[in-house]
Amino acid sequence: MSDVFSSRRVGGVVELIDQTLLPDRLEVLRCEDDETLAEAILLLRVRGAPAIGVAAAYGVAAAAVRADERGDDPAAAARAAADVLRPVRPTAVNLAWACDRMLRVLRDATDVVGALAAEADLIAAEDRSACDSMGAHGADLLGDVVTRDRLRLLTHCNTGALCTAGIGTAFGVVHTVHQRGRLGHLWIDETRPLLQGARLTAWEADRASMPHAVIVDGAAASLMAAGEVDAVVLGSDRIAANGDVANKIGTYGLAVLAAHHGVPFVVVAPTSTIDPATASGADIEVELRDGDEVRALRGTPVAPASSPGHNPAFDVTPADLVTAIVTERGVARSSGDLAAVLHRP
Amino acid sequence: MSDVFSSRRVGGVVELIDQTLLPDRLEVLRCEDDETLAEAILLLRVRGAPAIGVAAAYGVAAAAVRADERGDDPAAAARAAADVLRPVRPTAVNLAWACDRMLRVLRDATDVVGALAAEADLIAAEDRSACDSMGAHGADLLGDVVTRDRLRLLTHCNTGALCTAGIGTAFGVVHTVHQRGRLGHLWIDETRPLLQGARLTAWEADRASMPHAVIVDGAAASLMAAGEVDAVVLGSDRIAANGDVANKIGTYGLAVLAAHHGVPFVVVAPTSTIDPATASGADIEVELRDGDEVRALRGTPVAPASSPGHNPAFDVTPADLVTAIVTERGVARSSGDLAAVLHRP
Repeated sequence: MSDVFSSRRVGGVVELIDQTLLPDRLEVLRCEDDETLAEAILLLRVRGAPAIGVAAAYGVAAAAVRADERGDDPAAAARAAADVLRPVRPTAVNLAWACDRMLRVLRDATDVVGALAAEADLIAAEDRSACDSMGAHGADLLGDVVTRDRLRLLTHCNTGALCTAGIGTAFGVVHTVHQRGRLGHLWIDETRPLLQGARLTAWEADRASMPHAVIVDGAAASLMAAGEVDAVVLGSDRIAANGDVANKIGTYGLAVLAAHHGVPFVVVAPTSTIDPATASGADIEVELRDGDEVRALRGTPVAPASSPGHNPAFDVTPADLVTAIVTERGVARSSGDLAAVLHRP
Repeated sequence: MSDVFSSRRVGGVVELIDQTLLPDRLEVLRCEDDETLAEAILLLRVRGAPAIGVAAAYGVAAAAVRADERGDDPAAAARAAADVLRPVRPTAVNLAWACDRMLRVLRDATDVVGALAAEADLIAAEDRSACDSMGAHGADLLGDVVTRDRLRLLTHCNTGALCTAGIGTAFGVVHTVHQRGRLGHLWIDETRPLLQGARLTAWEADRASMPHAVIVDGAAASLMAAGEVDAVVLGSDRIAANGDVANKIGTYGLAVLAAHHGVPFVVVAPTSTIDPATASGADIEVELRDGDEVRALRGTPVAPASSPGHNPAFDVTPADLVTAIVTERGVARSSGDLAAVLHRP
């Protein structure tokens, strides 16, 4: 385990690694009030669905601690913190979920501060444990489907410790393979436009001493053709009931390429990502983000000012291109499996 | 036709658009001596195989003009210029070829300056004419294979007026389709790592008033899945005798994706690109360039300093994924066709 974390609570303070400064600078931001944490979530200093939920939970607990130290009502402070944090990113489901779960504790708590601190720790521990389970299930699966002793894996975007409370989802699988001494190499797609692969995953791989290299997204195909990729391992933003997978732009192309080269294509995501209300990928509307993300790179313009950028945020991979979906409750190899996995305890 | 050009001669001066400043700034560099032009070729201010040959030819002619104006020997000045220009980029075959062709003129010329000027103009005119032929053949082909009235084309890297003496190779086809009023949209892959698509092709498309947008390389797959790409049109650095195509990294992945989606995949290149001495793509060694090109973008670092970048400069697309190869002598639909096209007058 490396020293990477997304957020943590130290008394009345929430500390988080400012991801917008990575990989140039490792700086821990100390959030000593609700507003600083809310702004950090808004500006993506902390990002990734599970990580945002955990940070908000710590934020609610920290607010109670501070109020208690001042002699104020910790329950009122917790409610105020939740009100500040909940609306910051309306599409981040985990944010509202974590705030609501924290406030439910207030109903019967006698030791309000202790109960909130324990609940935040529990939310983080549950996520950490889910990551560990996904890591083990995924590493077992890769051991089954790849006959090679040391695996050459390819990943996309960032799915590591920076966006969870544990070792990560897809990156957690890579991490577990590495811990077992079986990681031959990790190819990291830089993941344009926002470069989460080059900026964040490479940084995590480096700190975990993994053998790795960053590639441009267009180089994955020739690596597969050269037989240098044993499996593709990546995360998901949303999985439909039929097993179609929405994930960061570039994922679908990798799936087609993996199928063409007979390379296993493994999606790793907690069961909370599976949305039974979405029948198939056709029901998922693709978010078009600001074209400026394509036309610039970390503030440097790369295209003419008068040329538009077309910037779909994610794409949808049909279930038949997915070898397996790894969750904390087990591995689904088909959409039938997916329903079964979802209903496991 | 837009006002884009790669180089031109005005008396004893070679003028060229400094491509390293695009798209931020359109600046015409005036090369008034051999060394300035040599440096411009070395630093990629002018780039692209045909464009380099033409610039060198103009350089030799311009040196003769300057010598004549000074009362010096124009033939000696032409030879001296060729000696300075020829070794600047040893792998650029067109550079040595153009210098040698210019010097052959000196053998029987009585009006040395006039003969050199005419030969340089002829080299440029031949390339311009080849571009026009490729454009017409390619546009005809697309009219045949795509039933749609207005074509949505996708291209990669830069193959336009900036790297030829005419309308370009693949971009020349797009240009011709546009001239015929049949261009619905041009999707431009940004083409990491060096961003020739975003920087140069988008700039050319904008100046030619084409409907266009820049996309990240990873977005091409989902555009094809959405039925928004009628054909992929791109260039080539080298074509093997069996029709395998070496081109900018990312090309092979596009070919696999195009085949998967039933999208025609059209390569456009002059017959000089076809190398009968190379039996197949397996005989082409892929050049690994400096990993820093991946780890940075226009000088801005995007990955941790300690993470290596893996940077293959191009990839090889097997002939069976190529719908057609368009040359100035006609269209090859199979490797048998390729040999026939090559031996056409």
